[in-house]
Amino acid sequence: MRKMGWLLEQVRKEAPLVHNMTNVVVTNFVANGLLALGASPVMAYAKEEVAEMVRLSRALVLNIGTLTPEEVEAMMVAGKAANEANVPVVFDPVGAGATSYRTETAKRILSEVKISILRGNASEIASTVGETVQTKGVDAGEVQGDLVALAEKAARLFQCTVVITGKEDIVTDGNETWVIANGDAVLTRVTGTGCLLSSVLGAFAAVEKNFVHASVAALAFYGVAAEKAAERTKLPGSFQLDFLNALSETTEEDVEIHARIRYITKGE
Amino acid sequence: MRKMGWLLEQVRKEAPLVHNMTNVVVTNFVANGLLALGASPVMAYAKEEVAEMVRLSRALVLNIGTLTPEEVEAMMVAGKAANEANVPVVFDPVGAGATSYRTETAKRILSEVKISILRGNASEIASTVGETVQTKGVDAGEVQGDLVALAEKAARLFQCTVVITGKEDIVTDGNETWVIANGDAVLTRVTGTGCLLSSVLGAFAAVEKNFVHASVAALAFYGVAAEKAAERTKLPGSFQLDFLNALSETTEEDVEIHARIRYITKGE
Amino acid sequence: MRKMGWLLEQVRKEAPLVHNMTNVVVTNFVANGLLALGASPVMAYAKEEVAEMVRLSRALVLNIGTLTPEEVEAMMVAGKAANEANVPVVFDPVGAGATSYRTETAKRILSEVKISILRGNASEIASTVGETVQTKGVDAGEVQGDLVALAEKAARLFQCTVVITGKEDIVTDGNETWVIANGDAVLTRVTGTGCLLSSVLGAFAAVEKNFVHASVAALAFYGVAAEKAAERTKLPGSFQLDFLNALSETTEEDVEIHARIRYITKGE
Repeated sequence: MRKMGWLLEQVRKEAPLVHNMTNVVVTNFVANGLLALGASPVMAYAKEEVAEMVRLSRALVLNIGTLTPEEVEAMMVAGKAANEANVPVVFDPVGAGATSYRTETAKRILSEVKISILRGNASEIASTVGETVQTKGVDAGEVQGDLVALAEKAARLFQCTVVITGKEDIVTDGNETWVIANGDAVLTRVTGTGCLLSSVLGAFAAVEKNFVHASVAALAFYGVAAEKAAERTKLPGSFQLDFLNALSETTEEDVEIHARIRYITKGE
Repeated sequence: MRKMGWLLEQVRKEAPLVHNMTNVVVTNFVANGLLALGASPVMAYAKEEVAEMVRLSRALVLNIGTLTPEEVEAMMVAGKAANEANVPVVFDPVGAGATSYRTETAKRILSEVKISILRGNASEIASTVGETVQTKGVDAGEVQGDLVALAEKAARLFQCTVVITGKEDIVTDGNETWVIANGDAVLTRVTGTGCLLSSVLGAFAAVEKNFVHASVAALAFYGVAAEKAAERTKLPGSFQLDFLNALSETTEEDVEIHARIRYITKGE
Repeated sequence: MRKMGWLLEQVRKEAPLVHNMTNVVVTNFVANGLLALGASPVMAYAKEEVAEMVRLSRALVLNIGTLTPEEVEAMMVAGKAANEANVPVVFDPVGAGATSYRTETAKRILSEVKISILRGNASEIASTVGETVQTKGVDAGEVQGDLVALAEKAARLFQCTVVITGKEDIVTDGNETWVIANGDAVLTRVTGTGCLLSSVLGAFAAVEKNFVHASVAALAFYGVAAEKAAERTKLPGSFQLDFLNALSETTEEDVEIHARIRYITKGE
């Protein structure tokens, strides 16, 4: 995919406003990560204003990491406003499968809001389609065939692009399927690296309406930046800082040279 | 203004308790920034306790960055308690002008609570007085005459000290007007540097009842600390950390030597 | 206590899930601190899901640093579910004594939820038993006899392990009493170091049902890690990062060599 580096430059050139409704653990890290990348973050949570904020934005990111009933209601308002205004919506169903409230809320958002990109780990995505997976296997080894099948099933069911992240990442719209093998295990030692990735997907979706391509470019960029930071340190405190630096420093050329992507099913 | 460095020392000597009702993106950064400076932060949001907490504090900072109806109600309770107890109130109308909910809430706070210092960028301050400005121009160039006029208009309307921050910062009470030219562009690459500045204004207002002088001293200190950190790094992750270090290390002498302040209209 | 280092290794081996209901200022720092240590953090706040999340977890940490009525109700639900499922509960009564809402809420939680470990500074613990102490004295000097008496009184009243932190830390269940003399004053310059300690107590309580021993081991580990970080820097921004690194790097041997613990009253 030749345009990966080019999409990174587009994000930096356009600095799209990304409206994040994310969890209280990661707000600061997500805002700083988007700024480091070159995008423009905004956070707004009140149902009194989210529709208006969405219409000013070029992507909406919904993340249920610390969901409450009030926040879910506001997410519905924001999601529907995004759909009406043709603003892409990224959904991160954090913890779906862990509690029934999260699983039900994830399903409700997926049924009432048209999602552009659904991102989660294998167990979260499985729970949205009513399945379960062994998460241990996902983190430990290569991408397994059943995870590709799971991603494609979810993509067809929700008619959206699905991203399953793990040791290797899968991107599919149910038709065209890619695997991205960048990143570093130290990402799992810092809270919010998955949440920030969802918001970075939002920034790329803001500048590229082919959401499979936007996702592949975002994942390659994110993984290459993580590798750059992991070369400097494997300590979790230092990595958090070095990763923000790397999101700012990683260039078009870095992505083109270091991206490890392959396709499983080529789009028509 | 000879007492700038002296006010910094007073903040460190008295370590005033500053009660922050700020947004969920920046709470940690604001608390750490106030601690680094030498002040004592406290956060409390419930309407059940804010009046009592305000009476223990020496400044109250209201920031509507992620406002909700419950939080706005609690801000009203806290603001009125501060007015009764003669505790200075700093108001940061984050995003006023972006959504009508923010604009209306900002106006409501300004009409129901007596504000000591109103701080925002040009577009936020303009929206509180029912005007609009071209924000691009503000960030790109020198302070323009119409921004001084805007600040003075807001100061007279709300009978408070107004601080407009940008490439250069304006401080005025409508009578005496100063321009502070410290700081560094990397501040815009880290989330919450404006919010933390509002809380630092609160710490200085706690020890100096002339709010114009308190604001000039706070802005000069903050800008000099930013310059010190920016000499070490321009990378956003590293800057966030180095800036906290610099808030702790910047001395009275640093401020006296490096402050770039001038007055436009001298007070009577 | 020979098993201190061993308990640290147990935490790292078992990576217990710790459910934190903590304040909005420190969520990110607490999650990253638990990850750095080697435990698994989860945050969940909605009364709709906390009981289910508690049952998946091996410890629950309640922290009222930015309490609201909704959060307090959810804490009650979570606390009672933890008691039913025999999941240990750590309670951090942040700011008890500062406002009557905090004091009353702390007392209510202590009367309705069976607490395993109650941790606070001297003034917070005093307020839970209806006393007051001079906090200045606590921070400035040696552990005073009346603080040991206070801790033992609280431990007997609430039938739990009580930890009072300060220049030296006290651990007691009313019968067996220890003093831990590790740590560094720079901890007071970074927000959330007390809150993170409460969550670290949760991680140790998850692997050791003798909560006095779990607490002594957690405090020695935490203090030794702080000393390791403080050798590198005394600047608050850098310390925040180095402390996370040190939580990850501090070994069993470090704790055994550097722990400074003594008992005042030996258990039967």
